[in-house]
Amino acid sequence: MKGERFSFQLLKDGGGGRLGTIITPHGTVSTPAFMPVGSQGSVKALAPADLQEVGTEILLCNAYHLYLRPGIEVVRQGGGLHRFMGWQGPILTDSGGFQIVSMSALQEVEPEGVRFRSHFDGSLHFLTPEKVVQIQEELGADIMMVLDNCSSYPASRNEAERAVALTAQWARQSQGAKGRDGQALFGIVQGGVYSELRKQSAHEIMEIGFDGYAIGGLSLGEEKEVTFEMAQVVTSLLPKDSPRYLMGMGTPEDILAGVRMGVDMFDCVLPTRCARTGLLFTRFGQLNIKHARYNKDTAPIDPACGCYTCRNFSRAYLRHLFLARELLAYRLNAVHNLFYYHSLMRDIRQALSEGTMDQFARAFVSQRGDTTENSRDEGGEIVC
Amino acid sequence: MKGERFSFQLLKDGGGGRLGTIITPHGTVSTPAFMPVGSQGSVKALAPADLQEVGTEILLCNAYHLYLRPGIEVVRQGGGLHRFMGWQGPILTDSGGFQIVSMSALQEVEPEGVRFRSHFDGSLHFLTPEKVVQIQEELGADIMMVLDNCSSYPASRNEAERAVALTAQWARQSQGAKGRDGQALFGIVQGGVYSELRKQSAHEIMEIGFDGYAIGGLSLGEEKEVTFEMAQVVTSLLPKDSPRYLMGMGTPEDILAGVRMGVDMFDCVLPTRCARTGLLFTRFGQLNIKHARYNKDTAPIDPACGCYTCRNFSRAYLRHLFLARELLAYRLNAVHNLFYYHSLMRDIRQALSEGTMDQFARAFVSQRGDTTENSRDEGGEIVC
Repeated sequence: MKGERFSFQLLKDGGGGRLGTIITPHGTVSTPAFMPVGSQGSVKALAPADLQEVGTEILLCNAYHLYLRPGIEVVRQGGGLHRFMGWQGPILTDSGGFQIVSMSALQEVEPEGVRFRSHFDGSLHFLTPEKVVQIQEELGADIMMVLDNCSSYPASRNEAERAVALTAQWARQSQGAKGRDGQALFGIVQGGVYSELRKQSAHEIMEIGFDGYAIGGLSLGEEKEVTFEMAQVVTSLLPKDSPRYLMGMGTPEDILAGVRMGVDMFDCVLPTRCARTGLLFTRFGQLNIKHARYNKDTAPIDPACGCYTCRNFSRAYLRHLFLARELLAYRLNAVHNLFYYHSLMRDIRQALSEGTMDQFARAFVSQRGDTTENSRDEGGEIVC
Repeated sequence: MKGERFSFQLLKDGGGGRLGTIITPHGTVSTPAFMPVGSQGSVKALAPADLQEVGTEILLCNAYHLYLRPGIEVVRQGGGLHRFMGWQGPILTDSGGFQIVSMSALQEVEPEGVRFRSHFDGSLHFLTPEKVVQIQEELGADIMMVLDNCSSYPASRNEAERAVALTAQWARQSQGAKGRDGQALFGIVQGGVYSELRKQSAHEIMEIGFDGYAIGGLSLGEEKEVTFEMAQVVTSLLPKDSPRYLMGMGTPEDILAGVRMGVDMFDCVLPTRCARTGLLFTRFGQLNIKHARYNKDTAPIDPACGCYTCRNFSRAYLRHLFLARELLAYRLNAVHNLFYYHSLMRDIRQALSEGTMDQFARAFVSQRGDTTENSRDEGGEIVC
């Protein structure tokens, strides 16, 4: 399927989610799909060979990060992002709309674009929607994201309204700036925690027309209930024949909830970030490898897991590596956590395919129930 | 060859070195051999699968480190060190004689053993030669090292004399303490920078009789000339039918010099430590990946190198990973550096086999000559 233009095939809809295939110039992706995050052109602690082995089909990188470091010209001269980072599968690049707001200093949103200082070296930059498309075209992303205006949380209705308006205006400019065929461009729906604004934003973005639609500006601190209410409002409006992407989420439970409301694509730093704090995902909840109880535990993280880590190493060894701050710890943990996420997606796709999503979800929740080992805060959120 | 008892076959002697095979219960090792260092039960940033791929035949671990953390009982319950760390090839464990002196606090050498405080938690420990053999037997090392008394540098002749005497006494006790068949025990020759003491120590250790002989207490700050003078004094006395191991050395140039004086085994942290500081070994000298000149360099570290890193990634990407402090940097660099070291050993063995060692050494020196990129201090030592 390499070399094909972007397209989306919806194979099955209903029965607790959507089963589909995304076709890109660098290969196909089975949806619902999880995208590991490699913001700077590397999924933390993992080589491309590891990603293949854990079952990654599509990666997320970040145009904002790569623009600042190493710079687009370095990647371009290196043969584009795929060749530069040695990953030959599909890549989605985030525009950095969210990162510019959350990471950079002295950020000012103007109607023409965003002025900000690099969080690396304080250098001054101005990015327009057109420039962000051009950057992603030069990176060679299979899927590009428009520059959106992500309001912070909490945002007043007025602020959220302005963000929706600017997001629509920029989306129009982004669509107009597309200079190459083959690379897909996704629009992003904003609207904060206001249903009416979410609906308005969805309609405006759909009217412009994109290869896929993302739901942005969620999971910024609002109640989980509100997150999913907003996501539901948007997915119920989005066209059935395009992929839907819920940005920056989430826990295994979040993903299952997203799938059930018709989301096709997910990304989150959780599996790789938790790897670096010793929090390991399993069918039975999270396991905190630092815990003294694993001191002499010769079992793998999950005896039923087929990942490289579980096939070769005990909890006792992983605990030792982590406490000794051996670099191998972060990698073995990341291999396991991503393998868990991708296995979850496979199981979800199988349940969708077989029409057994309700049973799957019940079994999932009852297994993951209560062994989360200090990994949740008071609100039930996974902390790592 | 798995499951065999320890033995050494000298295949060829003379013509610029010794060609041999070490047979151990966990497989065979072609000598001259380089042993990557995995003090805490992990070669920094590498998994066992990487070690196999770069050509590692035998690993060095450290009994002192593993005794302190995670503790011998943890490793024993984990099925021994091989199973615990997932490495099925031969393992040599260093006794920790050097580390106790160099790393622990409040260290006191008594005739019965060494009293010291853990460099991790300040806990008080007393290790005797017998206990150190027992530890290594429980770890299941293929090759164990006696507890020696490594005098610091500079040491007066009197101090060095006392260290030699204690080293011989402890070596005798160590040999007497050996309780299991199958695991080899190597003696260690001390004597500081005093030729006469080196000779005396060699004779005393040989008289006790060991499966192999190590030269310890060198490369502690003395002039390189002196290092090799001492090594030469010792190797000229050691029995031909046993392997000789020059501890803790060194640079590619050191290894070549050691081979030429009849050394069979080497270990050094240099390739893995330099990996973490961005210093990469090549046939043409060291390459400092941080250097701005590699910013847009699309070539691999060494176009003729066959390692995973060189087959897949450019200098520009490796520089980016390093500057972005991506964990993958340390691994890709370590893969390359160890591949370089093992390739060097293969080339050396081939030259020995073909009787072309002189030509090999000349070509080696002329290639590596002068492109070391700030990686050497005033004395010409590699700094990383």
